[in-house]
Amino acid sequence: MVVIMKRGFAPEELEKAIRTMEEGGVKVMVSKGSETTILGAEGNADGIDQEKLSLLPGVERVMRVTEPYKKANRKYHPEDTVIDLGGGALVGGEKLAVVAGPCSVESEEQIVGVAQAVKAAGAAALRGGAFKPRTSPYAFQGMGNDGIRLLQEARAVTGLPIVTEIMSTDNVEMFEMCVDVIQVGARNMQNFDLLKQLGKTTKPILLKRGLSSTIEEWLMSAEYIMAGGNEKVILCERGIRTFETFTRNTLDLSAVLAVKQLSHLPVVVDPSHACGKAWMVERMSMAALAAGADGLLIEVHNDPPHAKCDGAQSITPEQFTDLMGKLGTLAPCVGREL
Amino acid sequence: MVVIMKRGFAPEELEKAIRTMEEGGVKVMVSKGSETTILGAEGNADGIDQEKLSLLPGVERVMRVTEPYKKANRKYHPEDTVIDLGGGALVGGEKLAVVAGPCSVESEEQIVGVAQAVKAAGAAALRGGAFKPRTSPYAFQGMGNDGIRLLQEARAVTGLPIVTEIMSTDNVEMFEMCVDVIQVGARNMQNFDLLKQLGKTTKPILLKRGLSSTIEEWLMSAEYIMAGGNEKVILCERGIRTFETFTRNTLDLSAVLAVKQLSHLPVVVDPSHACGKAWMVERMSMAALAAGADGLLIEVHNDPPHAKCDGAQSITPEQFTDLMGKLGTLAPCVGREL
Amino acid sequence: MVVIMKRGFAPEELEKAIRTMEEGGVKVMVSKGSETTILGAEGNADGIDQEKLSLLPGVERVMRVTEPYKKANRKYHPEDTVIDLGGGALVGGEKLAVVAGPCSVESEEQIVGVAQAVKAAGAAALRGGAFKPRTSPYAFQGMGNDGIRLLQEARAVTGLPIVTEIMSTDNVEMFEMCVDVIQVGARNMQNFDLLKQLGKTTKPILLKRGLSSTIEEWLMSAEYIMAGGNEKVILCERGIRTFETFTRNTLDLSAVLAVKQLSHLPVVVDPSHACGKAWMVERMSMAALAAGADGLLIEVHNDPPHAKCDGAQSITPEQFTDLMGKLGTLAPCVGREL
Amino acid sequence: MVVIMKRGFAPEELEKAIRTMEEGGVKVMVSKGSETTILGAEGNADGIDQEKLSLLPGVERVMRVTEPYKKANRKYHPEDTVIDLGGGALVGGEKLAVVAGPCSVESEEQIVGVAQAVKAAGAAALRGGAFKPRTSPYAFQGMGNDGIRLLQEARAVTGLPIVTEIMSTDNVEMFEMCVDVIQVGARNMQNFDLLKQLGKTTKPILLKRGLSSTIEEWLMSAEYIMAGGNEKVILCERGIRTFETFTRNTLDLSAVLAVKQLSHLPVVVDPSHACGKAWMVERMSMAALAAGADGLLIEVHNDPPHAKCDGAQSITPEQFTDLMGKLGTLAPCVGREL
Repeated sequence: MVVIMKRGFAPEELEKAIRTMEEGGVKVMVSKGSETTILGAEGNADGIDQEKLSLLPGVERVMRVTEPYKKANRKYHPEDTVIDLGGGALVGGEKLAVVAGPCSVESEEQIVGVAQAVKAAGAAALRGGAFKPRTSPYAFQGMGNDGIRLLQEARAVTGLPIVTEIMSTDNVEMFEMCVDVIQVGARNMQNFDLLKQLGKTTKPILLKRGLSSTIEEWLMSAEYIMAGGNEKVILCERGIRTFETFTRNTLDLSAVLAVKQLSHLPVVVDPSHACGKAWMVERMSMAALAAGADGLLIEVHNDPPHAKCDGAQSITPEQFTDLMGKLGTLAPCVGREL
Repeated sequence: MVVIMKRGFAPEELEKAIRTMEEGGVKVMVSKGSETTILGAEGNADGIDQEKLSLLPGVERVMRVTEPYKKANRKYHPEDTVIDLGGGALVGGEKLAVVAGPCSVESEEQIVGVAQAVKAAGAAALRGGAFKPRTSPYAFQGMGNDGIRLLQEARAVTGLPIVTEIMSTDNVEMFEMCVDVIQVGARNMQNFDLLKQLGKTTKPILLKRGLSSTIEEWLMSAEYIMAGGNEKVILCERGIRTFETFTRNTLDLSAVLAVKQLSHLPVVVDPSHACGKAWMVERMSMAALAAGADGLLIEVHNDPPHAKCDGAQSITPEQFTDLMGKLGTLAPCVGREL
Repeated sequence: MVVIMKRGFAPEELEKAIRTMEEGGVKVMVSKGSETTILGAEGNADGIDQEKLSLLPGVERVMRVTEPYKKANRKYHPEDTVIDLGGGALVGGEKLAVVAGPCSVESEEQIVGVAQAVKAAGAAALRGGAFKPRTSPYAFQGMGNDGIRLLQEARAVTGLPIVTEIMSTDNVEMFEMCVDVIQVGARNMQNFDLLKQLGKTTKPILLKRGLSSTIEEWLMSAEYIMAGGNEKVILCERGIRTFETFTRNTLDLSAVLAVKQLSHLPVVVDPSHACGKAWMVERMSMAALAAGADGLLIEVHNDPPHAKCDGAQSITPEQFTDLMGKLGTLAPCVGREL
Repeated sequence: MVVIMKRGFAPEELEKAIRTMEEGGVKVMVSKGSETTILGAEGNADGIDQEKLSLLPGVERVMRVTEPYKKANRKYHPEDTVIDLGGGALVGGEKLAVVAGPCSVESEEQIVGVAQAVKAAGAAALRGGAFKPRTSPYAFQGMGNDGIRLLQEARAVTGLPIVTEIMSTDNVEMFEMCVDVIQVGARNMQNFDLLKQLGKTTKPILLKRGLSSTIEEWLMSAEYIMAGGNEKVILCERGIRTFETFTRNTLDLSAVLAVKQLSHLPVVVDPSHACGKAWMVERMSMAALAAGADGLLIEVHNDPPHAKCDGAQSITPEQFTDLMGKLGTLAPCVGREL
């Protein structure tokens, strides 16, 4: 932490600033020039309340030098974290992990059928929503517990680990028992109570980036889960909100690259939600792989025009198989395998 | 709802589109030109899945004509809704409702002292956070239940109704019993499970706009609560996220005006969180009143430099008293009173 | 300027960093701790290329401490700048300056008629576009030189100074001769060649904020004009681009407040372009005045439904007269007069 | 174009709306239901002023059905446009076109050296700025005409066509004579006078997307140039402005895909300016190729730490050679060659 004093500060203001920093647990280096006086913190500055310090009289500006996330920070954990989605399907290593399935679980036939198809094409895990966050209270809200049971059935048939979204702290215990990877949606990325409770579970958490969240806020939400004891966090870029309206959101692939440098956690990309258009999924998946993503989350539906939600962004099992072929060809160009 | 067919559609594609619309519960008017064919829905189109319709072969585009929110819509409820914050303090009528208090409840002395000061200055209700949504897991998370008790004490002393933020469905029952107005923070605006449960309570809900939420999404979140049975929703504009970094967020005062036209619900403005700077609060409060806000949410702290959170945006009781005087002078210019 | 060295930097890297700073014209203060080494610049750091410095090996981060704008900076010019729009109509002082008129000059009858009406209602100057920046090449592009002549005629009849937009360096000389205030549109805010040439004129420049410009970039564009020798710059907030689509843009009134603190230049607000809806103009004008604007830019058209452009956001002369009455009542509440 | 009438419209309002549409040159189809009345336009609706129509009494809403750009629209020109950058180097075909070079021309030695290096690595053209758009008037503004001369020299030595940015209409004639591809920077994307004059030249125009421009606005700016007679427009995505601050801008790769569908014009990507960080260039270049870009614009500098501008985002000739190798391996995976 670096503090710049205002011109013409009073001696007691300097003392107060130094004392406040020292009380926060650091040693203070003072550089006193004729015009500028700078205070530098030696040691861990986390104990200093930056805001309070900046409100002191005589203080012009307080600048943070280190990142506020620790457990998620690559500086302190240089090795890539590799996470087991369940049954040995890894994400974060050399092999690209593709999670595929419908937006919503709709019926046994549907979910089992899609699961078999994506498994055959090489998917690492099955996704499917049982509890659906819908903008409208009048829209289909998901099958709930029945949806979870159908996902379990699809897992039993195919062996694929299941990934599904949690929407309430009420369901943490049930999810911990029934599913393999617990997804936190973009709209709940800063539902801090939910994050805290997920920090006490043992299952991997797929944490989607909020629609208007900075990379730092996203990593701080990962930090919430990790600080609670669960270090198995998978980050998922799914598009951010901008002024552009042609696509549902704007997929931020440079964020993937950024997060891989700032953090050791695996990062996957969801091109389906980002773009909202099925015809864009193939190319954006390939771009995500090229950018360095550790995996993908792809919406696959057996009959997109009759999907109960997000049909417009779902590809068919045939298109998924085709996509997997293309990803397989591309992977070696970026040092990965499928 | 209006549907435009693609050029050169097949007759069976037209039939399929018409049938899909009819199954959704509307009568369909067909305008067949030499180049353009348009289908218009007569009646309530809510039963039609717009997305599915748009995926049908032969369909070029589907355009919604009516708003997706009903209970929150001024079209169906032309009169302004006036809500009692507790003890007769109204919001939504001619009188401006000012809710004031510290970001966090910190101690009995602090909250009772601030409550007395803001009451003396004319505040309609007391705000104070007991459960705090903090970006960092390492930051002060609020006093929790103890904070609620201290708020109740401040209410007992001053008679001011209390407004405080809920962060989890776990607390809905307790909040229903203990507080007067339940606040939903910006980060939980689309925590749909929470909204649903709040729809079953009897207390007014202060619903903050999400950082990147459109006006329509905000009204849809109000609709969630109202659809559950609780029509006492107070909307709160608190700044949206843009590229500008000088202010914490960008206060969108035209949204206040827009919402007052689109909806019958009362709208209040929180300039403290929007700007993040105490020196901006006075002028932005006055601007909000001029723009048509029904009330304000102002952070007031007895000792901002030592506040446990958001000290930089808190004004002192003296500044608050001064602000109330200015608002009192301004109010008649826009047909309001204080 | 403050430089933080990387942990484990080599002695020659430190020397190189110090030398680079010294060559930029400052004295360097070195704070060497056991973990952190900080270099602080004494004196004017403008000569240092911050980017180059940050690329040096061993340098972790370079932080600017002072604003990059000088002539526009209130620190060096604490007094409010007051600018004469022409004929003694001032902006930046106690009196609110209201500039009104149609989006486009369309005919003699129209522009003279509107000029007389807004003059009667108390406008300080007449606005009207002769050269129009239109998104589509197929839309009406303005009357060009004929429009300028009609504006001059309206000035001759009413005595009102005329404000009109310049779109090309080709017209600088002609504008200098013919108009009173030269407007730079949002889309040309960073047309640096135009700014440089306007810096050599003697007429006040009304500089609109770009749709996605930060406050700092806006002030840097003012600095371009001022650095060229013309210090008569009037800033105009006209809405920024966000994800919200109900309004054409999002009027950023906290930017008005911010700029008044950061700079000594007058700031006016254009609610017509910001909102794009005539019914919003009255309240947003009042809010702008309450926020501290020094003036307003209002679109007034004698027959909005038949305007050649932007009819949807134009108010009628009657509505303008009514608005002026309301602004007159409001002004004393914020220490202004009309 | 589709018009929805308000409920309870008067018969003469309907007639007025129909007449206004007919005067715009279309045939009007009327669908009269008991609740909803819809007017559909048959034929080219470009002659109708949508805004005026929407202001008529009795009109609820006017919805455009077709894109406002014609010459840039793939609907009317289904074949990909292939453009010769000069000397037979094509962009828009199967072969990826990579344009490389320094941000600014700084000296003969620098520009000729870089030109030789990028030519050897397979670049299709040389980029280099002679006129620089800088946020600060105090920053290096480019070598101007001398820079153009040095670019010509580099072309003479290497045979590479030269691409450089124009900043003012004053230079159109000179650029037409001296350079091969004229670049319009992001900040001038809506400098309509410049676009119009470029529409009269014969040289290819590289049109960068504005920082906050929608895809439609970008295509409308291309339309300006094309409407003037010059159909050789190359679009360049270079990042849009969002709330994220880690990267300079947010590279919008889905826009590349979108534009390739909406338009027949070639699209190239500039990862250097988008990210602002040299270490991101390789991966984002590969992602751009995977997403479907027809080419790349890469900043290459012989000595980035001493570059006069944008050194932080420049890669070295060695890194560029390495990148070209990787792109060459990747290209066949997406049906391209290098």
